[in-house]
Amino acid sequence: MGIVVQKYGGSSVADAAAVKRVARRIVEAKKAGNDVVVAVSAMGDTTDDLLEKAQAVSPLPPARELDMLLTAGERISMALVAMAISDLGYSARSFTGSQAGVITDSVHGKAKIIDVTPGRIRTAIDEGHIVIVAGFQGVSQDTKEITTLGRGGTDTTAVALAAALEADVCEIYTDVDGVFTADPRIVPSARKLDRVTYEEMLELAASGAKILHLRCVEYARRFDIPIHVRSSFSQLDGTIVSGSIEDPAPEEGTMEQAIIAGVAHDRSEAKITVTGVPDKVGEAARIFAALAEAQINLDMIVQNVSAASTNLTDISFTLPRTDGQTAMTTLAGLQEEIGFETLLYDDKVGKVSLIGAGMRSHPGVTAKFFSAIAEAGVNLGMISTSEIRISVVVADEDVDAAVAATHTAFDLDADEVEAVVYGGTGR
Amino acid sequence: MGIVVQKYGGSSVADAAAVKRVARRIVEAKKAGNDVVVAVSAMGDTTDDLLEKAQAVSPLPPARELDMLLTAGERISMALVAMAISDLGYSARSFTGSQAGVITDSVHGKAKIIDVTPGRIRTAIDEGHIVIVAGFQGVSQDTKEITTLGRGGTDTTAVALAAALEADVCEIYTDVDGVFTADPRIVPSARKLDRVTYEEMLELAASGAKILHLRCVEYARRFDIPIHVRSSFSQLDGTIVSGSIEDPAPEEGTMEQAIIAGVAHDRSEAKITVTGVPDKVGEAARIFAALAEAQINLDMIVQNVSAASTNLTDISFTLPRTDGQTAMTTLAGLQEEIGFETLLYDDKVGKVSLIGAGMRSHPGVTAKFFSAIAEAGVNLGMISTSEIRISVVVADEDVDAAVAATHTAFDLDADEVEAVVYGGTGR
Repeated sequence: MGIVVQKYGGSSVADAAAVKRVARRIVEAKKAGNDVVVAVSAMGDTTDDLLEKAQAVSPLPPARELDMLLTAGERISMALVAMAISDLGYSARSFTGSQAGVITDSVHGKAKIIDVTPGRIRTAIDEGHIVIVAGFQGVSQDTKEITTLGRGGTDTTAVALAAALEADVCEIYTDVDGVFTADPRIVPSARKLDRVTYEEMLELAASGAKILHLRCVEYARRFDIPIHVRSSFSQLDGTIVSGSIEDPAPEEGTMEQAIIAGVAHDRSEAKITVTGVPDKVGEAARIFAALAEAQINLDMIVQNVSAASTNLTDISFTLPRTDGQTAMTTLAGLQEEIGFETLLYDDKVGKVSLIGAGMRSHPGVTAKFFSAIAEAGVNLGMISTSEIRISVVVADEDVDAAVAATHTAFDLDADEVEAVVYGGTGR
Repeated sequence: MGIVVQKYGGSSVADAAAVKRVARRIVEAKKAGNDVVVAVSAMGDTTDDLLEKAQAVSPLPPARELDMLLTAGERISMALVAMAISDLGYSARSFTGSQAGVITDSVHGKAKIIDVTPGRIRTAIDEGHIVIVAGFQGVSQDTKEITTLGRGGTDTTAVALAAALEADVCEIYTDVDGVFTADPRIVPSARKLDRVTYEEMLELAASGAKILHLRCVEYARRFDIPIHVRSSFSQLDGTIVSGSIEDPAPEEGTMEQAIIAGVAHDRSEAKITVTGVPDKVGEAARIFAALAEAQINLDMIVQNVSAASTNLTDISFTLPRTDGQTAMTTLAGLQEEIGFETLLYDDKVGKVSLIGAGMRSHPGVTAKFFSAIAEAGVNLGMISTSEIRISVVVADEDVDAAVAATHTAFDLDADEVEAVVYGGTGR
């Protein structure tokens, strides 16, 4: 009998009716002959409500206590899911992250999973129980303190449990049917992908596709756990994330790899340009060291070739908009020391990325991408590439047009044949 | 430096403003030079809200999962209290019952504390932190499952922590000024007691005074922990519960013990009478064994002398009204076997109790009590007595009159002198 790990997010357990629906879904998997382990998030807006409560008593609550507070959210949802299952005549046991053996480092608010020691879960499985585990939380290895993994941590919890239990599959239930070739709200003709490799999914996630969190995909890739992204509102098969770009679909023999997996976009970033930086060894390093010290994660970085006449260069980079103020303040404090000319801040930008394992062996992809965007009348800003991704920064207002044009240029739009496959059983 | 344990109930931490007020109060105790350990209940109606959520997914939720769910309540309040303290510039650490070493038996929903192993609390105290502990919860010794102590369990948590930490005092904060000679809503002239013995407090609690729970007083008595019952809304001294009736106020030398501590009443019981029971050895035992098996706790029990002519007797007892239906069903099932005549059920009853260690050496107390009630025109039903208590069952509608008449007859009404003592510093 195989083990299936399922993950349900906050919207899937938002109220009593949703909890009951999830319980029925879990029981179905059990009835189908699987041992079932479930990771759940806090119900609906619970986490936001708790954060609001914290703000009401302290503008800067200690991270340890914030973790203690927030972990109450999953405790509530997991107990309710277990109760709803029991109401269907099946036996369920809920476990906190700590009880489930989710061991993390000590960084409150964004702890990393170090190890999973699922002794109690195995015992519960062996006793025939369905197991419900609190997502998003763990216990620190050294200090035995309650930690949280940060937003989206329940995906990671699910994959980590699947790896520790050597599960057959980790099913991530969400409110869409799977991973799409583009955001269907922008490109109505976007197709659901039946299969995507870990690397492509990583690039999609890093490029703004919100369906899976980066860390969860990294974890799944490391332990080779297939992820099945699917809707908790339908019985349709979703998207299988598995296999590497070297060996995209091991269990299905050879299959021609599609050139492009999809088009992703991201409107959460801002662009900062530092102009007139002296083109000396170490100046750029000093800028980035200061930003790193301020705990700011940069995304794309571009440095122009310096003009020979002035020996000055411009450095541009993108970063989360939420870090914009901190970054500008940090850099302004370095102006005298480094001697750059000006700081330009632009948060009216968006990033459009084309992702596909096939582009490695198809040299024309970049040119086709750029001309599609140009034909849509969109101006390109910064450009960065990886082996299986090309990203460009465009004006915020041009994002939709650039995504749609790219999607069409690479023949990703669904046609009637695709629409039938949609409701099918997965290729 | 002494350790002070404080307990705040749900109404004391009902919202952000209340949490902040409690935090200031806790910090005051720390500033006064004490090490402070605090047990908190869930905020306001949180427990009822969680029970409602459980009901919405399952009419009969498993007890284990219900405990998992309910313990989220204190987790929220304790983290918020710790945050509010930290906002005042003091360092606080919150701990779940399990982390605090509150070890219980495995009876979910009404677990008993077996042991307290406060290693983590001691460490936190030694590091200078104020310690906040989730009330009402623990972890079972054998199965390591999360348990709850039942309603009012936070009082017991506080006293158990005080005992394990050898605290100087356990302060129970509530929404009244202390323990009164009667319920001030019924007897406006009721006086606050400055001191009461454990035994008197036990009889008061068992007789319907809701201010402290029986188990908490039993625990305090066993470990000789003084309890200070006081208001979280004022700075007044409240009531000290300490000392035995043999040695009522050890630290204050000899002092004449008041005859009567107070008058308590209880409207939560019903009376069942089994008429025409054959007066043979074992018949009564059979009745009570059946009720015990149904998990029903009886309070007062009266058996009449059997009439010689019939050799039949009547047995009456009181029990919680909530158990009335179960008890009647259980007994009806025994009618044939035992051969009693009828079952009478009366839930329009109330119990009035007079409690005082001094009554042991004052033989006139019973007579005075009964005539006060008679003069108020109230008819007596069942009567039961202990060494320091007399209880009578009266009609529900007569409870107020009986309490008031008794209170006056024993000179318990406050006069001007008492009113001054009221705001004083405790005798």
